[in-house]
Amino acid sequence: MSESTGPGASYPQQRDHLHARMRDLVQAAPGPMQGFATLHQKAVATGVLDANTKELMALAISVASRCDGCIAFHTHDALRAGATDAEIFETLGVAVLMGGGPAAIYATHVLEAVRQFQERPATPA
Amino acid sequence: MSESTGPGASYPQQRDHLHARMRDLVQAAPGPMQGFATLHQKAVATGVLDANTKELMALAISVASRCDGCIAFHTHDALRAGATDAEIFETLGVAVLMGGGPAAIYATHVLEAVRQFQERPATPA
Amino acid sequence: MSESTGPGASYPQQRDHLHARMRDLVQAAPGPMQGFATLHQKAVATGVLDANTKELMALAISVASRCDGCIAFHTHDALRAGATDAEIFETLGVAVLMGGGPAAIYATHVLEAVRQFQERPATPA
Amino acid sequence: MSESTGPGASYPQQRDHLHARMRDLVQAAPGPMQGFATLHQKAVATGVLDANTKELMALAISVASRCDGCIAFHTHDALRAGATDAEIFETLGVAVLMGGGPAAIYATHVLEAVRQFQERPATPA
Amino acid sequence: MSESTGPGASYPQQRDHLHARMRDLVQAAPGPMQGFATLHQKAVATGVLDANTKELMALAISVASRCDGCIAFHTHDALRAGATDAEIFETLGVAVLMGGGPAAIYATHVLEAVRQFQERPATPA
Amino acid sequence: MSESTGPGASYPQQRDHLHARMRDLVQAAPGPMQGFATLHQKAVATGVLDANTKELMALAISVASRCDGCIAFHTHDALRAGATDAEIFETLGVAVLMGGGPAAIYATHVLEAVRQFQERPATPA
Repeated sequence: MSESTGPGASYPQQRDHLHARMRDLVQAAPGPMQGFATLHQKAVATGVLDANTKELMALAISVASRCDGCIAFHTHDALRAGATDAEIFETLGVAVLMGGGPAAIYATHVLEAVRQFQERPATPA
Repeated sequence: MSESTGPGASYPQQRDHLHARMRDLVQAAPGPMQGFATLHQKAVATGVLDANTKELMALAISVASRCDGCIAFHTHDALRAGATDAEIFETLGVAVLMGGGPAAIYATHVLEAVRQFQERPATPA
Repeated sequence: MSESTGPGASYPQQRDHLHARMRDLVQAAPGPMQGFATLHQKAVATGVLDANTKELMALAISVASRCDGCIAFHTHDALRAGATDAEIFETLGVAVLMGGGPAAIYATHVLEAVRQFQERPATPA
Repeated sequence: MSESTGPGASYPQQRDHLHARMRDLVQAAPGPMQGFATLHQKAVATGVLDANTKELMALAISVASRCDGCIAFHTHDALRAGATDAEIFETLGVAVLMGGGPAAIYATHVLEAVRQFQERPATPA
Repeated sequence: MSESTGPGASYPQQRDHLHARMRDLVQAAPGPMQGFATLHQKAVATGVLDANTKELMALAISVASRCDGCIAFHTHDALRAGATDAEIFETLGVAVLMGGGPAAIYATHVLEAVRQFQERPATPA
Repeated sequence: MSESTGPGASYPQQRDHLHARMRDLVQAAPGPMQGFATLHQKAVATGVLDANTKELMALAISVASRCDGCIAFHTHDALRAGATDAEIFETLGVAVLMGGGPAAIYATHVLEAVRQFQERPATPA
């Protein structure tokens, strides 16, 4: 009821809240969301690129798309897939290249999310 | 003064706050906003498509555009125009098709907004 | 090989070209695209909203998202689902409301696409 | 019938084509477009900021929004309002700051549009 | 730790928070952010257009891009560069023209930011 | 002079054209573009992530951002950095996850770009 988005928000709380709400969305729109779940699962599964790299790509797009909820999800999932701080920082550089000033703003959100998830061990999916 | 955006925020409060601020914007930029008001009124007026359908379209674009304030406004207006939960849920499916992961995040915001507006009867415009 | 996007382009050619290329994409990324195909099929299937309405929603988002290839696909699919000119025109009004000047530009592309598809009977999917 | 968008396209032809198509859009959606016309006219009219400055702002947003048709319109209108090359170049710097790599791509389109409009005297509105 | 984004948030707090976080980003990604810092500084420096005008352009793009953190930064920087209320209001008109409904929402955020920064004297950079 | 964007366009021609125009942009806006050049060079340089991975990230954002010129540049640069077809195809899956239908359209453009660059050996930068 009380978490909020943006600087100062708790990304772990936001992630858990969205994770629960995503289940409501699956109930509300089961057909499309079944397709989306497959798309999600297959897109980030290890293949010739490993899951870590794919989660960093998803995080880069989250930043360039200015989507805080996406940052909550994909920072969590990138860390869980084994991404290091240094890998995340270089990913932010690419996002700023492709998104300019607004991406720089949202890149700072990722820094906060990383810190917060590291203070609170990531929840199993 | 104290509402915030995103998951957990009260969309009815956010909508009322924005509605009041929109009047300030009309005072600040009366010429352009007079044109915008006409655009708004005519675009969602019942024609060959009814207002309900048009508000659902506006809501779909709000989700695909990742705009929480728009979600507050157009969830309110869609419900007032008679949109049912089931119609809103199918609208979210189209938004996720056209907006991917970020739209799935903002689709969960609409679910929260629907619940909140139904707990608090919608205000007349 | 020679069609291009934007004003003056043939949207039926563009649609057929993209339709063929989409099959290549399914081959290139079969896992994710199988999920996307389900998402697509379920999101626009007739439910409490009919397919026509859902295609118009997808078209509205295509315009607000400034995506010419999407306009080629969803103008085609909206017409095939039975959308009338008048319904499409009102849909464009909503898109301009939610997308401003850039949406007005892409709304003119839809007018061209409608004319072109009506001159050339739509292809079965 | 044969002009196209993007690098190499003729922006004067594109602008004239869109200008004509915009009249079709006004006929197709007269209510919303009447509002949009007022919004357009009032937003760029000289006030405490002159029309030149406002057109440069519209051009900056066109670049950051990756909208070639908008570039055709607002480069034309900025030049007609008296914008100099140097003013346009500085405007592109702001657009690249706020839009990153994609804005750099579309900034090069503005350079082409400027050259083309200067080779062909701008048409009265 | 407790500020949030959107209507009701304190933009001065948000700006100060982001300003501090931006220094973290420079440490995290020094190479890219050194380039970004030069891009930022040169893009808004007085040239044939003065800094005030350039900040208003950046603010217009912030609104059209629906970026609250950008609104916090560029409202602050526009005021510091000497922008008047009337200039900001006309800038919002251009942003609404180019961004439609979502830009109208974020334009109301700028009105709040202006009020808040004027109640609290702007911090030196 | 005659290449165009979108399906059917030659991405190698488009890339070479843009590469030349980018030099014009550096002359037009030398201060900001000097910063942008550093941002570009540092963001994609090999670090803890190799250049290949970073170019794939930039390509994923190009697709999610619906930017054809970016696709021309970053497909070229990803191939030059050693990206394989299979890596690019998996990157497109992530882009479709994060961008939905419009990303699927632009993902097909990448398939065309890959084919075209492989038919014509990539030019040294």
